[in-house]
Amino acid sequence: MAVGLGPLPKFHSIDGVRIGVASAGIKKPGRKDVVVFEIARGSAVAALFTRNQFRAAPVRVASEHLAAAATRYLLINTGNANAGTGERGMTDARACCAALAATCDVPVESILPFSTGVIGEPLPVSKLTAALPEALADLKADGWAAAASGIMTTDTLPKGATRQVAVGEEVIHLSGISKGAGMIRPDMATMLGFIATDARIDSALWQRLLAGAIERSFNRVTVDGDTSTNDACVAVATGCSAVPEIAEGGAGFIAFRDALNSLCLELAQALVRDGEGATKFITIAVEQARDRKEALDVAFTIAHSPLVKTALFASDPNWGRILAAVGRAGVENLDLDAVRIHLGDVCIVHNGARAEDYTEARGQAVMNESEISITVNLGRGAVKETVWTCDFSHDYVTINAEYRT
Amino acid sequence: MAVGLGPLPKFHSIDGVRIGVASAGIKKPGRKDVVVFEIARGSAVAALFTRNQFRAAPVRVASEHLAAAATRYLLINTGNANAGTGERGMTDARACCAALAATCDVPVESILPFSTGVIGEPLPVSKLTAALPEALADLKADGWAAAASGIMTTDTLPKGATRQVAVGEEVIHLSGISKGAGMIRPDMATMLGFIATDARIDSALWQRLLAGAIERSFNRVTVDGDTSTNDACVAVATGCSAVPEIAEGGAGFIAFRDALNSLCLELAQALVRDGEGATKFITIAVEQARDRKEALDVAFTIAHSPLVKTALFASDPNWGRILAAVGRAGVENLDLDAVRIHLGDVCIVHNGARAEDYTEARGQAVMNESEISITVNLGRGAVKETVWTCDFSHDYVTINAEYRT
Repeated sequence: MAVGLGPLPKFHSIDGVRIGVASAGIKKPGRKDVVVFEIARGSAVAALFTRNQFRAAPVRVASEHLAAAATRYLLINTGNANAGTGERGMTDARACCAALAATCDVPVESILPFSTGVIGEPLPVSKLTAALPEALADLKADGWAAAASGIMTTDTLPKGATRQVAVGEEVIHLSGISKGAGMIRPDMATMLGFIATDARIDSALWQRLLAGAIERSFNRVTVDGDTSTNDACVAVATGCSAVPEIAEGGAGFIAFRDALNSLCLELAQALVRDGEGATKFITIAVEQARDRKEALDVAFTIAHSPLVKTALFASDPNWGRILAAVGRAGVENLDLDAVRIHLGDVCIVHNGARAEDYTEARGQAVMNESEISITVNLGRGAVKETVWTCDFSHDYVTINAEYRT
Repeated sequence: MAVGLGPLPKFHSIDGVRIGVASAGIKKPGRKDVVVFEIARGSAVAALFTRNQFRAAPVRVASEHLAAAATRYLLINTGNANAGTGERGMTDARACCAALAATCDVPVESILPFSTGVIGEPLPVSKLTAALPEALADLKADGWAAAASGIMTTDTLPKGATRQVAVGEEVIHLSGISKGAGMIRPDMATMLGFIATDARIDSALWQRLLAGAIERSFNRVTVDGDTSTNDACVAVATGCSAVPEIAEGGAGFIAFRDALNSLCLELAQALVRDGEGATKFITIAVEQARDRKEALDVAFTIAHSPLVKTALFASDPNWGRILAAVGRAGVENLDLDAVRIHLGDVCIVHNGARAEDYTEARGQAVMNESEISITVNLGRGAVKETVWTCDFSHDYVTINAEYRT
């Protein structure tokens, strides 16, 4: 059960984007496991991929194709990650692209493939390609909700967000979906995220805006610290909006950038809210750090500590474990007396020891909630960074001691 | 239940070392929670302490005292770590040392304090000092087994090892005990380890030998990646042996050093075998690395991956998760095709993909055992490093969602 994750929004359709789903029976018969995005000519397509050095075949093929030709279709399957499949996996990924390209009469490089699911099993290419006609016949502007469900694996709920930005008399729309629940510690990329907007924008600027949005969102969430071999986020800007081209310093730029950042943050936090076995949504803020690196080192050390995460599961205001995590984060010459730690509004550590007015009851009240914030003030600079994570529960163990990924 | 951890050995007594235990009722009434080591004048005492920046008060006091005077007593308590206790904790640690020093008529700096247990609660000084007469009255040469039990906290079994080294006609003896089960990722120090030998050896050489032994043993084990605020290892060389002084290049040096390394490795591996909730003892070897850093980065990334550790708990030969861990370990320009991974003797990954002759049955056979080895060959150098860890089970969550540390 996800923590504080609401139902899907009513998505804004995006002119220039149609989405269709189909059942290929890749892993579970009957479920929708193939999703196709059709993208209008002239769209700007930006993408980021996992930094895990073991890039799955679809990630490698998508990267090649993105550089080689204008993207016209995204081809997504669940049930099989086509990862750890060597040269055969590359062949299979290309074969799926070729099948779709042939049917749609476009160059094979205009297809970007994405796969998520079990690692190490060969992709059932014929099942996938047999489902393409169904997906293509299903293409529609309001396919976002179906797509959000179609890309799920161990997610318990679909994840989506939508925004609109008024610029003068006109409106720009953004919609996005994401998936991922375990093997989450996106590293300069994301789990799977698909975003589209009808804005007109230069390709290079679009890539920069996406990278910035991902850095502040998907790269600030973690479920279990394990970065997937398949993380990818693609963002399409179709240019179909009547709003004049979005450019730095121009009308609507700031509002558009903020909407993109906000949409990505909502999608990224949804991954944590639906983290495998999660019962708590945790915000970890590190303040007054000297630089970004030390702020993130401290935040992620806390976020990844099994002892902190199990204490959170137990609603145990175990600040000693948080202290120990800060102490091993590798901050140079940390002045312990300057460190303050808060649980919610309750100060738990001051001057390197338990705060004098701290009581177990006050700490317990904070920890009993399903949304908890931990704030660490290092007292040595002006940089603040925030990371989001969830707790470590029995269900995490149960889910991962059974699911073959 | 520990994995493959045998009963305590019959310890060799160490001339110049006597040990006594007592019940102070620090946390649990009736259990032996105070341990005193009495050390002969003229002993060489070496020690390493945690690199966690939040050093507990006893660690700070012990470090000061070690530098200030010859050590005559070790004063150890369980039930309370006297960590996160600020200035009061320092005062309390000194007060306990002062009480023992006064009773034994030695300088206060000749006492080294060690505490382990709950973080953040003030040390019950009067209870502790009230138990000192009982501990002193109990001092005996064959107190090692009682001490091994006396220093336990969440350990399910006491941990000890003993060795003897023949040099000419004479024999050098070594004995040691350790404790620790959770919050284990010793960083240039250890959980709690106490070692003694009757060898004669120069102080500086003894510190170097201890540091080398700890690097190869305690610094190569991890349960949950969480480095404690209290890690410490002390080694006493009393010089009471008839064997001539141990010196580099001299008679018995290599055998003595090897015995110390072997003893420390046994004690360190015992921590992992008794890791909280452990059901598997895992050996992770990284071979043909360019340097020590990348070998350890890869080994520890695997050892800390929640997805690998839960798969191990499930006896699931989930090599995909091991692959993903290697891929995110941060090795520069890793050539995936050169990477080979074995589970036991079974090759699971070859050329960046599942090995052609791999079958689930062969992998499963390896994973069904309680002792499992994972070997990663990077194919790019000559360095090998080995790390030991255990799995992540439901019991880890249960234990840590309930124990206030």
